Amino acid sequence: MKKFEEKTITSDFKYKGRVITLQVDEVLLANGKTSNREIVKHPGAVAIMAITEDKKIILVEQYRKALERSIIEIPAGKIEPGEPPEATARRELEEETGYTSSNLQYVQSFATSPGFADEIIHLYFAENIEKMTKKADLDEDEFVELMHVSIQEMESLVENKQIFDAKTAFAFLWLKDYLKEA
Amino acid sequence: MKKFEEKTITSDFKYKGRVITLQVDEVLLANGKTSNREIVKHPGAVAIMAITEDKKIILVEQYRKALERSIIEIPAGKIEPGEPPEATARRELEEETGYTSSNLQYVQSFATSPGFADEIIHLYFAENIEKMTKKADLDEDEFVELMHVSIQEMESLVENKQIFDAKTAFAFLWLKDYLKEA
Repeated sequence: MKKFEEKTITSDFKYKGRVITLQVDEVLLANGKTSNREIVKHPGAVAIMAITEDKKIILVEQYRKALERSIIEIPAGKIEPGEPPEATARRELEEETGYTSSNLQYVQSFATSPGFADEIIHLYFAENIEKMTKKADLDEDEFVELMHVSIQEMESLVENKQIFDAKTAFAFLWLKDYLKEA
Repeated sequence: MKKFEEKTITSDFKYKGRVITLQVDEVLLANGKTSNREIVKHPGAVAIMAITEDKKIILVEQYRKALERSIIEIPAGKIEPGEPPEATARRELEEETGYTSSNLQYVQSFATSPGFADEIIHLYFAENIEKMTKKADLDEDEFVELMHVSIQEMESLVENKQIFDAKTAFAFLWLKDYLKEA
């Protein structure tokens, strides 16, 4: 876990934003030389692979300014300070989709961009999700459109690049395997 | 592709690094209000799912400063200015592993962190890769250790979190499916 460790010599904060922070670390390399590493700090996120009783997968379409396009993703959101990831997962599912689950199962965590960011996404699975009578509120700068798709429809969305992010690409393979065995 | 489009009002560069650039865009939201989006610009990257003639998967272990630990990944690397992604894939495979392939197949592209970064990874697959007589050189601040693992060994690396990044988590599911059918 520490192979080729890069010890920090100095750490310079360059920008503190609302969501992310950017720092540049000067590091001591395994060969005794030094280099700089640009690092984006992020609070971490959760994402939820949720399916209804009739095996429809819940997706949301939203505009992603960084990509200058809208893409279709599994529901996801940032972890608030001190919030346990499972609570974030339930909150984001409710806010973004109006569904809830009493049985969120933890699947896996992964770093999204380990070359320059510390963001980790915790992935959950929920089946037989239930529609809430009253939809929870989204953040005021958040606009999403809810979709219910079969695994075959999800495959088409991957093929035509409307699904275009790593967590949702992973979710498609995971759900395809799960639904094959179910 | 433009649903809920967020038009740019102003775009402020906050930091220009060696690899990434950070900007903050003030945007006009779908409801007529404004908000800020913090965006990391990245040149894009490639990653290679490579297997040897005896179905061993090529992985590399390296220290990831952003995570303060070493993780095990499929070979990957940043696209140089003007470089076609397939050329990057061949170059990174040769530099990081000492293997080469005359038949790189394009698989899929995905954004790694669409909430705050424009990084896109282009994923390639190569089988029956060949050992080069002379290994290409790594970047001078790059240290990687080569591994050859079976799909069962790769599964253990996912389970014990030594494999811990999105592209390699995706690659495991993709390769498991591919090797099952092969």
